[in-house]
Amino acid sequence: MAQNIYDQSEFFAGYSAMRRSVEGLDGAAEWPAVRTQLPDLTGKRVVDLGCGFGWFARYARSVGAASVLGLDISENMIGRARADTRDDAITYRISDLEELELPEASFDFAHSSLAFHYVKNFERLVATVYRALVPGSHFVFTIEHPIFMAPRHAGWGTDVDGQRIWPLDSYAIEGSRTTDWLAKGVVKYHRRLGTTINTLVSAGFAIRHVEEWAPSEQDLIGHPEWAEELDRPTFLLVSVER
Amino acid sequence: MAQNIYDQSEFFAGYSAMRRSVEGLDGAAEWPAVRTQLPDLTGKRVVDLGCGFGWFARYARSVGAASVLGLDISENMIGRARADTRDDAITYRISDLEELELPEASFDFAHSSLAFHYVKNFERLVATVYRALVPGSHFVFTIEHPIFMAPRHAGWGTDVDGQRIWPLDSYAIEGSRTTDWLAKGVVKYHRRLGTTINTLVSAGFAIRHVEEWAPSEQDLIGHPEWAEELDRPTFLLVSVER
Repeated sequence: MAQNIYDQSEFFAGYSAMRRSVEGLDGAAEWPAVRTQLPDLTGKRVVDLGCGFGWFARYARSVGAASVLGLDISENMIGRARADTRDDAITYRISDLEELELPEASFDFAHSSLAFHYVKNFERLVATVYRALVPGSHFVFTIEHPIFMAPRHAGWGTDVDGQRIWPLDSYAIEGSRTTDWLAKGVVKYHRRLGTTINTLVSAGFAIRHVEEWAPSEQDLIGHPEWAEELDRPTFLLVSVER
Repeated sequence: MAQNIYDQSEFFAGYSAMRRSVEGLDGAAEWPAVRTQLPDLTGKRVVDLGCGFGWFARYARSVGAASVLGLDISENMIGRARADTRDDAITYRISDLEELELPEASFDFAHSSLAFHYVKNFERLVATVYRALVPGSHFVFTIEHPIFMAPRHAGWGTDVDGQRIWPLDSYAIEGSRTTDWLAKGVVKYHRRLGTTINTLVSAGFAIRHVEEWAPSEQDLIGHPEWAEELDRPTFLLVSVER
């Protein structure tokens, strides 16, 4: 079973105060890049893996999805998602992605935002999503970028000239990383970018787009603090087709 | 036109003394990983982009390739490749990958080892290779890993605990990098891993395997100095299908 950090009160309070929790999709830097990768959702049966407060589920319905199943391990998240949603075509369910079961060929699109780096058995998860999708359907997800996850000390340092650097190490050493983000002892699973791609290819998916998110010049005018993302990526966006 | 650093005497002398130049393919750490990705070459018409001393061309023939065209920008390299080869089915030709022209549908397999990071217009090159291959054929290449290429100071540093780190910065800033490797002022072109993949997908290739090379435990017994590669990758291996 995956760690359920979102139901720890300190973590949940911190997460709930983040811009993306308050403002929804438009509060997430990477959302415009994700939206560009979405297929036409009109009439589609959508599954959202790690649905959080339900922002994506409601968005999918607003652009024509027939139905959305939102899954999350956190009772806190599912509770608020249900409270914030008035739509019979959206179902929220508590579910551990580590042990996910989905009916075969029952969805036309799968989405996940920043959830899979909490999952240890990515291979099993990908195989489950593959079986749950009908042929020709798309699967778009974001995870924390492996460059962001890998280091012993995942925080900025300085180089010999005193300039900002990201102190990378242990990139090839896959497995758990324990960090103190919003709460102490958050467990994540580091996989190389190549491993993520190869797992998808082995399951049968065709790679469509891989984006190591960075701000545009236009983005930087509104958010000069995003300049850090030019030095090392935080978000990895992957789009595949079944 | 690409920089022709291999015909600069200091660089060529340094390169010629490297283990991979003296011992050939078996002197290259990443070769076993490359070999694993090769299709059956029996009867295949092979093109090798950046063929150097011709080690791969001769290997391809030794495992049954019908013919090999080896291309390299360097007169020094092509000269030695010709001197070291006695095989009418291997042709070596001086060629700038930046301006590569190949006849349509005339090859069954394309290979390149550590050459494309010298090429500025990767999109043009990939489109040329795609047109030159027959449908169903494979294309396997290595390049310097973008994590290796990106930094201002591409050399090891230490973190707050005094442990070895790779000081990453500028990862999202694609374009030229000038380094002093074997000679001063070697110009290479940095592209994010995602950009390399997306360029291949846009050209029509299907991604088969992406490997950020790292040594196995067995490798480390013979080569303890390769442990650095666990902290940050030097080599990126990509295998695609047309």
